[in-house]
Amino acid sequence: MTAVPVLPADFPALRGAVLTDPDVTAAYADDHCSPVHGGTPLAVVLAECTDDVSATARWCYANDVVMIPRGGGSGLAGGASALDGCVVISLARMNAIREISVADQYAVAEAGVINADLDAAAREHGLMYPPDPSSYEICTIGGNVATNAGGLRCVKYGVTREYVLGLQVVLADGRVIKTGRRTVKGVTGYDLTQLLCGSEGTLGIVTTVTVKLKPAPAHPPTTVAASFPDVVRAAAAVAAVVASGVTPALMELMDRRTLEVVQDMRPFGLEDSTIAMLIGQASTPADAAVLEREFERAGAHYVVVSDDPAEADELLAVRRAAFPAYENAGNIFSEDVGVPRSKLPEMFARIEAIAAKYGLDIPTCAHAGDGNLHPTLIYPHGETEVPQAIWGAADEIFTAALDLGGTLTGEHGVGVLKARWTGQELGDDVLELHRAIKAAWDPKNLLNPGRGF
Amino acid sequence: MTAVPVLPADFPALRGAVLTDPDVTAAYADDHCSPVHGGTPLAVVLAECTDDVSATARWCYANDVVMIPRGGGSGLAGGASALDGCVVISLARMNAIREISVADQYAVAEAGVINADLDAAAREHGLMYPPDPSSYEICTIGGNVATNAGGLRCVKYGVTREYVLGLQVVLADGRVIKTGRRTVKGVTGYDLTQLLCGSEGTLGIVTTVTVKLKPAPAHPPTTVAASFPDVVRAAAAVAAVVASGVTPALMELMDRRTLEVVQDMRPFGLEDSTIAMLIGQASTPADAAVLEREFERAGAHYVVVSDDPAEADELLAVRRAAFPAYENAGNIFSEDVGVPRSKLPEMFARIEAIAAKYGLDIPTCAHAGDGNLHPTLIYPHGETEVPQAIWGAADEIFTAALDLGGTLTGEHGVGVLKARWTGQELGDDVLELHRAIKAAWDPKNLLNPGRGF
Repeated sequence: MTAVPVLPADFPALRGAVLTDPDVTAAYADDHCSPVHGGTPLAVVLAECTDDVSATARWCYANDVVMIPRGGGSGLAGGASALDGCVVISLARMNAIREISVADQYAVAEAGVINADLDAAAREHGLMYPPDPSSYEICTIGGNVATNAGGLRCVKYGVTREYVLGLQVVLADGRVIKTGRRTVKGVTGYDLTQLLCGSEGTLGIVTTVTVKLKPAPAHPPTTVAASFPDVVRAAAAVAAVVASGVTPALMELMDRRTLEVVQDMRPFGLEDSTIAMLIGQASTPADAAVLEREFERAGAHYVVVSDDPAEADELLAVRRAAFPAYENAGNIFSEDVGVPRSKLPEMFARIEAIAAKYGLDIPTCAHAGDGNLHPTLIYPHGETEVPQAIWGAADEIFTAALDLGGTLTGEHGVGVLKARWTGQELGDDVLELHRAIKAAWDPKNLLNPGRGF
Repeated sequence: MTAVPVLPADFPALRGAVLTDPDVTAAYADDHCSPVHGGTPLAVVLAECTDDVSATARWCYANDVVMIPRGGGSGLAGGASALDGCVVISLARMNAIREISVADQYAVAEAGVINADLDAAAREHGLMYPPDPSSYEICTIGGNVATNAGGLRCVKYGVTREYVLGLQVVLADGRVIKTGRRTVKGVTGYDLTQLLCGSEGTLGIVTTVTVKLKPAPAHPPTTVAASFPDVVRAAAAVAAVVASGVTPALMELMDRRTLEVVQDMRPFGLEDSTIAMLIGQASTPADAAVLEREFERAGAHYVVVSDDPAEADELLAVRRAAFPAYENAGNIFSEDVGVPRSKLPEMFARIEAIAAKYGLDIPTCAHAGDGNLHPTLIYPHGETEVPQAIWGAADEIFTAALDLGGTLTGEHGVGVLKARWTGQELGDDVLELHRAIKAAWDPKNLLNPGRGF
């Protein structure tokens, strides 16, 4: 048993709680990224208000103590994992929705509001908050901003950054600033809101978020699901839908291994002939007909079209279970590459080849309509260190994505897990600009150091 | 006549032209912002390629010479006005569309491509480039990025930043970087693309732009135009449409003085009873019916609904003529405030009161669906200095917009004209972060100094 760290006498009094018992703080050491093992914090602050965050930052800044901001802890890249001697600043208790403006279609939410709760609150007023990460029931809006989170509906509605209008942010030294605005448009000064979005807690700690809301659709979408004899044909179907000019409301692809691990966890009647499954949704019956046509042309075994919301939820539940099922199957090294959508078939073919080369299990699901894939490298639960074969295969997958004109991470962020590859995508001059921005905002390098790039 | 500046012997040889004759370079001294008078450049570089821009920047950096990037020169805030002894770097000749990917729905265009040309090229493939500033026939995509330009269609489709995927940029010292990507999603590192978007040429010179394209709508929109007995009722109609949950494809408001100056320039049969005009477009007949209903409920004299594209173009031509008509009527001090849409009626009322207080002519048109207004202060063509009453009224209009939860500039940018007010909106801490970012990117303060914030 580790000794309980003694909180220095000058640590500020807060409205929220301060935890120091290692048996308790251990729950805040890691996020959902199995390969990254967090250290032991000096303390975990459960902030209740922006003042708590500000007072904590001021103390950390004065005492050169590292700060790790934390939302729902659902990150898949280790971006919220603790470092030895750090202060973890949890925003989870700051979960009030302060305002929903129906007239101006925006919401003001504290950083700890759960994504699904924000959307549900908007729906009470005929509005919606569209970005919906797979973890929408446990992730927070603050974490969504920090990672510029995507989600299933983003193919139609866009990602988090397209909804963030303004932020309240605590800087490294504890000063509180506001960025952005509540108006639809605005170009006064640099767009610090956008710079902060996706900055993974390295420039400031977001405490309050103002987001655009959209009118909720009057009719439920039509769901079009299809079974394919191989994943490359399913990927080709996606590229064909995009080329048709129809924008689906959602388009998700699962390969055979993904379907199998989901089936293991919650059986849904997986058939032997289904090697890949594509689930699309369309806003209109005409668009649904295009999805059906393109799925069939690309070689689907069978296509199911349904207007029944309960059936749609059941089909989507399979997709939403993919990550829990991966975690159920073993420790996961979660990748998140993106490629231009026309390259999806080739990217799937390359992942299959890499899996074969390394003799690995790499189930893959994809926000296929966005060209965003989650090849997931699985290794046994017992192993604490990532096997070398996993690192090798991960490296080849990243390189393949870049080679196809793609990116290292579509929506999960770089965190700790992918920091070694950022230079390969960004180049030295761009990395230098990153370091200059970081130094300007956080001269002591105390905010989530080593993460993000 | 001013002496022709002698270009230093070590000025780089370029593929493009270098102009030094003041009679010629005078054409590059100003943009469309009458109150700002540009200085005399040392030279104007008509760059033909990124290498030209890079070589020029390298020379300027080594010799501490200020660089003023310039697109179409259609800016309304003086952001492209020359300074004495500067080098103006015009991107106008870099006007090649390098690629249109139908499969992946993006375009790669050099910075000098005219906005309307890019859209027209996309339409040949069934796609469109949505953001359409009123100056779309003369403004460039590079300038659109520098100012994060808005436009008429932005109420439905969003502004420039929502379309920019990646940039090629020349830094102050001449280095060439690439930011962003061609994939739909991507979160590797800070979003420098978004930081550059709207930075008004103060961080780098954009030479190539990769933008998202959208499928062009299959059917032309339905246009709904209405005449109102006063502007406040017209503004209330806009707020009612927004609150109804219908997203119009376009919603433009013109007050009586705007209609009069347009009528003076190109008569269109303005009737005496029309004190304000609202032009909406809807993507579906059902949405058009909502516009019609809300316009009538708010007190319109008459409402015209038309599916005829020629009639729609004619109605929109009145709106697109507003700025040329303002310029025809006098020198203009163009404002660009934004407010939450529910505050439009109050903002119009305040503008009327301010006009009365100062005895000024302040015609106002608005991208009303976005809450973005262009109150335009007009003073006689002969006057070279902005009259004090204009500064006073401008100040009160800005203050009123901020007071209503709004912003100084919705889409035109700060430029030189509004730099004095940025602190009022941003505050000292945020301004300090601006200066730190600027210093990190442009340590010698040579890129468009004094503009943007």
